[in-house]
Amino acid sequence: MNTQVLLAELPQGPLTEAHFEIRTVDIPTPGPGEVVVRSILLSIDAANRAWMQGATYRSAIESGQVMAGYALGEVVDTGGDSSLRPGDLVLGDLGWQEYAVVKARRLQPVPADHRPLTDYHTILGIAGLTAYHGLITLFGVDEGDTLLVSAAAGSVGSLVGQIGKIHGATVVGIAGGPDKCDWVVNTLGFDSCIDYKNEKVSTALRDHCPNGVDIYFDNVGGSILEAALGVMNLHGKISCCGAISQYEATSPVGTRGVPGLIVTKRLTMKGFIALDYPDLDPTARLALAGWAAEGKLTAPIDVMDGITSAPAALIGLLAGNNRGKRMVRVGADPAF
Amino acid sequence: MNTQVLLAELPQGPLTEAHFEIRTVDIPTPGPGEVVVRSILLSIDAANRAWMQGATYRSAIESGQVMAGYALGEVVDTGGDSSLRPGDLVLGDLGWQEYAVVKARRLQPVPADHRPLTDYHTILGIAGLTAYHGLITLFGVDEGDTLLVSAAAGSVGSLVGQIGKIHGATVVGIAGGPDKCDWVVNTLGFDSCIDYKNEKVSTALRDHCPNGVDIYFDNVGGSILEAALGVMNLHGKISCCGAISQYEATSPVGTRGVPGLIVTKRLTMKGFIALDYPDLDPTARLALAGWAAEGKLTAPIDVMDGITSAPAALIGLLAGNNRGKRMVRVGADPAF
Repeated sequence: MNTQVLLAELPQGPLTEAHFEIRTVDIPTPGPGEVVVRSILLSIDAANRAWMQGATYRSAIESGQVMAGYALGEVVDTGGDSSLRPGDLVLGDLGWQEYAVVKARRLQPVPADHRPLTDYHTILGIAGLTAYHGLITLFGVDEGDTLLVSAAAGSVGSLVGQIGKIHGATVVGIAGGPDKCDWVVNTLGFDSCIDYKNEKVSTALRDHCPNGVDIYFDNVGGSILEAALGVMNLHGKISCCGAISQYEATSPVGTRGVPGLIVTKRLTMKGFIALDYPDLDPTARLALAGWAAEGKLTAPIDVMDGITSAPAALIGLLAGNNRGKRMVRVGADPAF
Repeated sequence: MNTQVLLAELPQGPLTEAHFEIRTVDIPTPGPGEVVVRSILLSIDAANRAWMQGATYRSAIESGQVMAGYALGEVVDTGGDSSLRPGDLVLGDLGWQEYAVVKARRLQPVPADHRPLTDYHTILGIAGLTAYHGLITLFGVDEGDTLLVSAAAGSVGSLVGQIGKIHGATVVGIAGGPDKCDWVVNTLGFDSCIDYKNEKVSTALRDHCPNGVDIYFDNVGGSILEAALGVMNLHGKISCCGAISQYEATSPVGTRGVPGLIVTKRLTMKGFIALDYPDLDPTARLALAGWAAEGKLTAPIDVMDGITSAPAALIGLLAGNNRGKRMVRVGADPAF
């Protein structure tokens, strides 16, 4: 049997468990070119919530359907497709369900012998590529730069700050709560961290960034972006990765300082997603895996169990409850 | 005697003539390293108003002082400085006055035999460099691109659109009123022009830009920038030149769609000012003068007479009354 989580109703405002519905159906039979994949590790991302706001870089999610989601899984039925074999590990949009029927050509095979499997959602996966491309491919970071990172305890921010430290930057994080800020500094090695829940960010930025900010890696948008604009240096760069502060907003909030400060400070703001630089993905993965092997880069993970925990996992992520890459272990893997 | 226009009071909201004060003083004697320059042509720019909002790329203007302004003038007293001679033509911040005493090293000498002198405020001046660098140096423009230009009848916008046409782009302007729009299309050669005073810009953009917008040259910010964000193509570029819609605002207005649409469309927004690329200025001036000589580029001018008309010239510019580069003829020049 196949347990699925449907998005029963599109949220208008904060997402709650009531927007989801659990159901159990038969595992369907694959059609031509389709295979059946058993989900092992489902990635939970702020982007999941953004998809509910309408068409973005993917088509809008509709209510009544299995919630979309990127996952690692194992091919269990090739349906006669010759490009994959049972037991192959693959990445793809398997959705929030235990078994997915997917076109074989929409799956990305990955080596089956790599452990831990969670790396496929961190340094070898979307989070790693997002961190690497958003910082290194877009702008690069130089020794002595001040790098500011919001959602610093998140899957991407936690990597971005560490990559900044590897390049000799002074790295300042922004996270919610004293415990997370301590963790960002003491475990991840950021130089300092601003607690946006207990500090006035614009004032704290002046204290934490006495030389201004050269690169701001923005995961949140909103008032924190506005505050960052105020401390950006001349010719500063803003890597626009996400706007988590806006995903639950019922009406759009404007960003003050745009375009005024963009002009006077000659800033560059650039948006991107992880999938924009496929030619550079091997370079990125090699660098990330190398840093990890050298012990310079930690990929923190935050794992919950069972497909039915996916709604709570996402709701909690949007509330900032996670530390590092949140994912849901869907099925027990013998070699997990 | 020297007639001067002082900024008597910093405006909070719309600028009026009451914010200025006219006075006549003796022409001062130059100090060490200073020269006396007779003003010939004063440039009137939206940036003049932005300077009143506080420190930008220059220090804030203070009340009670001669209003700052960039002008072409003639050296009349070298005060013993050996780097300049009487009769030399120079560009610099002469302010809103008939005679300025300025450090010689802060003046840029220009050839005295070039005519018309108005070119020094258009194709050979700040407007020309702003248009060239903001379009060509920042991003370039390719055949088949759709280029959108706000303040299309202004000193910079009028040049940007023509440079876009020279490069084979489809060029859509935004200007206020049917007469200005007709002029933008029929005299400047834009493909079409949206009348923001009589059309709903977001709707009109969909009609005028059926293939979306690849490059938006933004002189205005505010709601027109928001509307442009809605029609930008994937990987589109926004050249942030100014925010004239915000210069008279008493409280800052935020730009909706930032950073959300920046991320999902992978846009680049980049701010600049004309003076950012001195190494490329000769290239820019050569290109602009060449296009003008070939008859491909018209530099429309909008000249008012007498230094005391400067306040009205700026107030009118902020209301959109000008067509092309507004300037004030301060003193009659024999070879004007």
